[in-house]
Amino acid sequence: MKIVKRPETMQGITMGLKRKGGTIGFVPTMGALHEGHLSLIRRARRENDIVIVSIFVNPLQFGPSEDLKRYPRPFGKDKKLCLQEGVDFLFYPDAGALYPRDFRTQISVKGLEDVLCGKSRPGHFRGVSTVVAKLFNIVQPDNAYFGQKDSQQAVIIRRMVKDLNMPLEIVVMPIIREKDGLAMSSRNAYLENKERETAPVVYRALQGAGTLVAKGIRDSGKIAAAIKNILISQKSGPVPVIDYVAVVDLESLLPVRTISRDARTLIALAARIGKTRLIDNVIIGRRKKGKW
Amino acid sequence: MKIVKRPETMQGITMGLKRKGGTIGFVPTMGALHEGHLSLIRRARRENDIVIVSIFVNPLQFGPSEDLKRYPRPFGKDKKLCLQEGVDFLFYPDAGALYPRDFRTQISVKGLEDVLCGKSRPGHFRGVSTVVAKLFNIVQPDNAYFGQKDSQQAVIIRRMVKDLNMPLEIVVMPIIREKDGLAMSSRNAYLENKERETAPVVYRALQGAGTLVAKGIRDSGKIAAAIKNILISQKSGPVPVIDYVAVVDLESLLPVRTISRDARTLIALAARIGKTRLIDNVIIGRRKKGKW
Repeated sequence: MKIVKRPETMQGITMGLKRKGGTIGFVPTMGALHEGHLSLIRRARRENDIVIVSIFVNPLQFGPSEDLKRYPRPFGKDKKLCLQEGVDFLFYPDAGALYPRDFRTQISVKGLEDVLCGKSRPGHFRGVSTVVAKLFNIVQPDNAYFGQKDSQQAVIIRRMVKDLNMPLEIVVMPIIREKDGLAMSSRNAYLENKERETAPVVYRALQGAGTLVAKGIRDSGKIAAAIKNILISQKSGPVPVIDYVAVVDLESLLPVRTISRDARTLIALAARIGKTRLIDNVIIGRRKKGKW
Repeated sequence: MKIVKRPETMQGITMGLKRKGGTIGFVPTMGALHEGHLSLIRRARRENDIVIVSIFVNPLQFGPSEDLKRYPRPFGKDKKLCLQEGVDFLFYPDAGALYPRDFRTQISVKGLEDVLCGKSRPGHFRGVSTVVAKLFNIVQPDNAYFGQKDSQQAVIIRRMVKDLNMPLEIVVMPIIREKDGLAMSSRNAYLENKERETAPVVYRALQGAGTLVAKGIRDSGKIAAAIKNILISQKSGPVPVIDYVAVVDLESLLPVRTISRDARTLIALAARIGKTRLIDNVIIGRRKKGKW
């Protein structure tokens, strides 16, 4: 495995690889790798000649009061994991190399970035879209792998790739969970003991919603209310503070009134436990070809 | 020469060409080709294995009160010119294919797009950046050719390409002029007889500025005043209505107070003659390596 720091070096390598006709699988990450990331890397490894992982804690997607400084950066451990998974190139750029002083360009996916998590994180998804476009241009992937946990991110990146005619496929992989159901996330490391014990209620609430849908309840208002009820009825430990619970179309992110089996509906939520913001989601409805 | 309408077909062709290692030169146009465009095509022909010209009157870069419908579309003539110049592929997409109903993505180059022409054409340069990024992703050029006449466009596209790490070079070519000095433009066709006779004053005003700089006058205020004076002193025919006269840094587009021989300074103007908006510019100062 080769570690590459400079964007121009990485791009020189990938342009050369493309000319040789090899396929490139790309897993962009912010590091602090967990089993969720590893599931993406493993699939990339199965489906491509070359696997490139990037580790970059992107300042552009953090708000001024967010956890940019505090975000975990266990590079030594991440490097070892990438090596174990047969990664070919680990792209590990500096912020200064990706954002020189006179950097000015911004990609916006209108209508998808100001809802759900975008409401409480203004500018976050513009930061995500912009850095992902940059990484795609540097890494030149045929396939890029994202986790369903960041569902809004996946929806936005898919839309951007389609809208800008980027020549690659976006593959979205299922959420990987701890044994007690908590969705794996680098930010789970922030949870203190009591908070960690409480955290699985987030997924239990989504499972509760799934059960209601399975029973034939289709009204999104009732589903959202049931989720909120489970969250705030949390007895032992800190009660989650709900940011949002949303029942939306998986492509447009527009609210869905009545859940249909024939459409893909995203039930997503964000809640704070202590100071830690957790997100999770489930997708309802029949999967369509070429979609997630 | 092959005419390609569908973006996916064009991209399939270019991805195949890249794999074979050929270089692609790209000239994006809105058609109504004149000698300015042809100079770009000829240079692309000299410098690349494959030359692709696109003709697309991009609705995204026209304001609601602008000349989208009226813009000339002499496709038969354009096709013939491309054939004569040895173009390999003429990419001629429909608006519906580039902008499906659910299109949402927008590229912004902050700070460069709301000045000069951007002031009176809100959204114009976002439309330009977005379509050019799409075309680059479809056509996969090694080199893309733009005219200096649209100087702000060239500055913005250069910045976008650098900021988004797009793997290509932007080549900016000099303005091609009619014998009387009028910068060639597809929009010159709108000028009525008297207006056409008046139009060369635009370049005469810029030449006047050049003479002042050559004489050692470095104060941008004086230069701009001299340009405006020449424009409004126009005696025979309609007097041009000045939109702006700007003396700015060629990279940042920020106003320059004192013109230096060691910096690249753009002196640009826009003026209406009758209903037709004309733009023109000159660049002062020593050319740096790899710049225009």
